[in-house]
Amino acid sequence: MQNLLDDAIKYGKKFAVQGKPATYIPELSKADPGMLGVAVVNVSGQSWKSGDYDSPFTIQSISKVAALMLAVMDRGEDYVFSKVGMEPTGDPFNSIIKLETIRTSKPLNPMINAGAIAVDSLIAGKNTEDKINRLISFIRQLCHNDKICYDEDVYKSESSTGFRNRALANFMKDAGIIEGEVEEVLDLYFKQCSIKVNAVDIALMGATLAEDGISPITGKRLIPRSIARLVKTFMVTCGMYDASGEFAVRVGLPAKSGVGGGIMATVPGKMGIGVFGPGLDEKGNSAGGIKVLEYISNKLDLSIF
Amino acid sequence: MQNLLDDAIKYGKKFAVQGKPATYIPELSKADPGMLGVAVVNVSGQSWKSGDYDSPFTIQSISKVAALMLAVMDRGEDYVFSKVGMEPTGDPFNSIIKLETIRTSKPLNPMINAGAIAVDSLIAGKNTEDKINRLISFIRQLCHNDKICYDEDVYKSESSTGFRNRALANFMKDAGIIEGEVEEVLDLYFKQCSIKVNAVDIALMGATLAEDGISPITGKRLIPRSIARLVKTFMVTCGMYDASGEFAVRVGLPAKSGVGGGIMATVPGKMGIGVFGPGLDEKGNSAGGIKVLEYISNKLDLSIF
Amino acid sequence: MQNLLDDAIKYGKKFAVQGKPATYIPELSKADPGMLGVAVVNVSGQSWKSGDYDSPFTIQSISKVAALMLAVMDRGEDYVFSKVGMEPTGDPFNSIIKLETIRTSKPLNPMINAGAIAVDSLIAGKNTEDKINRLISFIRQLCHNDKICYDEDVYKSESSTGFRNRALANFMKDAGIIEGEVEEVLDLYFKQCSIKVNAVDIALMGATLAEDGISPITGKRLIPRSIARLVKTFMVTCGMYDASGEFAVRVGLPAKSGVGGGIMATVPGKMGIGVFGPGLDEKGNSAGGIKVLEYISNKLDLSIF
Amino acid sequence: MQNLLDDAIKYGKKFAVQGKPATYIPELSKADPGMLGVAVVNVSGQSWKSGDYDSPFTIQSISKVAALMLAVMDRGEDYVFSKVGMEPTGDPFNSIIKLETIRTSKPLNPMINAGAIAVDSLIAGKNTEDKINRLISFIRQLCHNDKICYDEDVYKSESSTGFRNRALANFMKDAGIIEGEVEEVLDLYFKQCSIKVNAVDIALMGATLAEDGISPITGKRLIPRSIARLVKTFMVTCGMYDASGEFAVRVGLPAKSGVGGGIMATVPGKMGIGVFGPGLDEKGNSAGGIKVLEYISNKLDLSIF
Repeated sequence: MQNLLDDAIKYGKKFAVQGKPATYIPELSKADPGMLGVAVVNVSGQSWKSGDYDSPFTIQSISKVAALMLAVMDRGEDYVFSKVGMEPTGDPFNSIIKLETIRTSKPLNPMINAGAIAVDSLIAGKNTEDKINRLISFIRQLCHNDKICYDEDVYKSESSTGFRNRALANFMKDAGIIEGEVEEVLDLYFKQCSIKVNAVDIALMGATLAEDGISPITGKRLIPRSIARLVKTFMVTCGMYDASGEFAVRVGLPAKSGVGGGIMATVPGKMGIGVFGPGLDEKGNSAGGIKVLEYISNKLDLSIF
Repeated sequence: MQNLLDDAIKYGKKFAVQGKPATYIPELSKADPGMLGVAVVNVSGQSWKSGDYDSPFTIQSISKVAALMLAVMDRGEDYVFSKVGMEPTGDPFNSIIKLETIRTSKPLNPMINAGAIAVDSLIAGKNTEDKINRLISFIRQLCHNDKICYDEDVYKSESSTGFRNRALANFMKDAGIIEGEVEEVLDLYFKQCSIKVNAVDIALMGATLAEDGISPITGKRLIPRSIARLVKTFMVTCGMYDASGEFAVRVGLPAKSGVGGGIMATVPGKMGIGVFGPGLDEKGNSAGGIKVLEYISNKLDLSIF
Repeated sequence: MQNLLDDAIKYGKKFAVQGKPATYIPELSKADPGMLGVAVVNVSGQSWKSGDYDSPFTIQSISKVAALMLAVMDRGEDYVFSKVGMEPTGDPFNSIIKLETIRTSKPLNPMINAGAIAVDSLIAGKNTEDKINRLISFIRQLCHNDKICYDEDVYKSESSTGFRNRALANFMKDAGIIEGEVEEVLDLYFKQCSIKVNAVDIALMGATLAEDGISPITGKRLIPRSIARLVKTFMVTCGMYDASGEFAVRVGLPAKSGVGGGIMATVPGKMGIGVFGPGLDEKGNSAGGIKVLEYISNKLDLSIF
Repeated sequence: MQNLLDDAIKYGKKFAVQGKPATYIPELSKADPGMLGVAVVNVSGQSWKSGDYDSPFTIQSISKVAALMLAVMDRGEDYVFSKVGMEPTGDPFNSIIKLETIRTSKPLNPMINAGAIAVDSLIAGKNTEDKINRLISFIRQLCHNDKICYDEDVYKSESSTGFRNRALANFMKDAGIIEGEVEEVLDLYFKQCSIKVNAVDIALMGATLAEDGISPITGKRLIPRSIARLVKTFMVTCGMYDASGEFAVRVGLPAKSGVGGGIMATVPGKMGIGVFGPGLDEKGNSAGGIKVLEYISNKLDLSIF
């Protein structure tokens, strides 16, 4: 396994350098696109690492997986999915183009920004501080790392430039999808995106999902089995932005990427894989990270299909 | 297994009667929504059946899976996917609504009608007759049934009312996606949709996909492994129209439905499942068939997630 | 003329009571839909009135005409129309549906909310207070009424519920259309919409436009001729929301309506007409007001076509 | 007037050469973009001409005006506008983007291709030949020219490449907007677009509209007054494709352009103007023709606004 990871990093480097760090969040644009790291944790808790596996990065959209699990635990699947859809696509089978049929303002699924913001508005807590603390505490458990916290500079950078997310949130507020204060929900969302992790952390999160919710380190159940399966489904159908279909074909694993450069992947029953490479392709996924996962999946024949 | 299938049919009947046959193709509207059948074929070729498993129905969109495999064998994956996309969704992560970003006229994926028509234009053959004969011959192999042919009445019904598909095809012709004669491609498409099968036929097709392309009856490889995996991916992400996401959550199997009432499902490494129930839900999937699959998947814990 | 106006009010009342006050701004929903008033001011400054001509109402979208004139005087036509379009429609002549072709985030024209918010961001002034004071002062001149000011309650009602406008403004901020602070531009917009006028006030504004910018009372030029003509064009092509086309056919006059129930119309070279009726039709225009204008236009043969 | 027209042509030539002939219809692409002609006919029947005023060109979309008048005379305004809308835009006043609200498949207005095809399906006649003969006969009257007929080569060129129009027509057939045979309606449409005229012909058509339907040559009423006004309204709001708004601002006259290079304009109560210049701008309007009209309108102060 160690050789495999070293080879995967060597292979992925060629693609990593062609990527570019996210520029729309000023703090993220400073990252070195040549960095690339990977960590694997199996369901027995054994781990292997290679490259920049201990470099910190912000979790960004990978946090959507954790937030969704917490919201479903807090409010139940039925209520959450009355506010957000389950579909990667809204197309009826014969539409000429996609939008002809959008009849509700309900976001399509919990992995797009609009859906994730709607999900955040459902997390329980007395106030925003309480909610973000609950979410961080949950992510610490999933990653078995008590030091995880959010990065103040990235948070401020996201909050001061997040006009698109502000537009989405206000649109949903107008449509009755979001119930609380718009700015409070956005504050939670921006903080959650700014949580700092490394490849090992998210490999552990992936390993916990591989075991349907049981921590490979403590053996404790952190998430009900049905909820672990639920989020793995969304990771397959819409975890890699609009490259999810191609990723399913080429890699065949439930995975969630973030514009911070991380990808959290899970191999059901076997292991979690965390990769980090801040050089992004034009779809917003880690250019090198995708190649590392493709390499590992093909060598070990891990595709679920 | 036999008891399980009998119970599944009993369970599914309650939902089947709430469905309605497809009305937009006059010939299909005559079906009895109370019918419900299931067949299972495992990778050793053993089979079990229950209910209306031998009632004939038209294959409709399930044929898209076979047509895609044939086109990829004829033209190669790269060429086919230069004409049709791989994505269940075209959303970038932060779009307010979906259509803002459609930049090409390339259909999103090969499971929507537009994509399937584009795929049909890539099937090799001297003329339409040759192409439909090649496709039928391929489907006969996949289903291990030499008697399979298309239904003349349904074909005529589809052809004389298929204005929406005609609009899609002409739109793609204008955009340079379709190369040949529009009416010839449509003729192939309407004939292919009108192919008559039963639940056992499509269970065998599913079992062949379960073994990554090897027929469970003859042991012969009918499809290259990579192509079998490719189509299973599309079955998960967009095989059930715009209920694909929910189906992935509730059932967790690669599957393809048709408005004739059939659903072809595959359990990787294990078995194929064919169901038939012409009463459709509002998304166009067999109302009883989905419930039969949900029942079987949950009882046998078959979800790939 | 007096008899004509009395008859028009009598005729319009039947339609007025079928309308409903705007409900999305809580303060507006309190209005009595049975009210209906009209005022005519000709280019010599003579005036005629009937019905509820002196009832105050909030100017709402009618203010967009004044704001556009002020912004063009402040920044020049070229700069303003680099930020907002001139088109009632974005359709190329052969589009299947409209949105396929939106390539920029530039709002289509200055009469839709997005366009008006973008225009507001171009009004000169040291700060929001200075800007709203300049706009109110300009509207006072156009209406020859020094007492015009904005309604504090309506302003607060609009500001606390304006999530849709907030979404639009943040979307344009993200796209680089709006340059300043989003909340400051919105504050100006909400205040401007809350300006209180009556039918006589807006009839005077219409009469000033009828004379291409010269006040019928003072004989002073308030707007350059080219700018007066510019706004009359937008009043014809998009002044009545998405009933502009039908209004052009039935009435044939440049006009701008607001959800407060007012419509300001202008008969080039002849007169201005102000109507007020808070009962709105489903397109958001005064149900009775439209009928009053149709009656007057037909009786006096005022259509510009 | 003669000097004015000569100057207008001189001025327009500079812009004409920057235009390009339509390329999507092979026959049209052969035209010389340097050509430019103008004709004016006043309501007394006097005429002035300059440049390439007698060069024949195909009428293309200008025919939509005549077809609409004929259909309304045949079926009545109410029935025609139950099949096609009156709006230049479908936007509600607060839509973030345009398509969110399309709820019907009814084309927005009779000047876009979809609307014109729907209008054609309403023209009375025993068969397509009868219908095209009735339409040509009507256009001959409007242009006071008995020799007008359609160009066989252009018709064949349009018919064999008109996939986009075929898509539109089939889409509307599916939606129940078009009642007859799709290919028959398209045949009428392609023939009508291929009618050959010159600048003098369309100047006469414009003069007839200027007098609300009375021929300036014979003094006979050819169109009811209300229908003449109706079409002039559409010419203002959507006669110049998606440059209609800007044309209204810069020229201020009801006008209809065609990709053959013609523009038919009308000055209510005064005159008709016909221009021809096959070099098109990127919106599909005659590049030189627009400038000729702008020159004439500004010099004679003809804007209706």
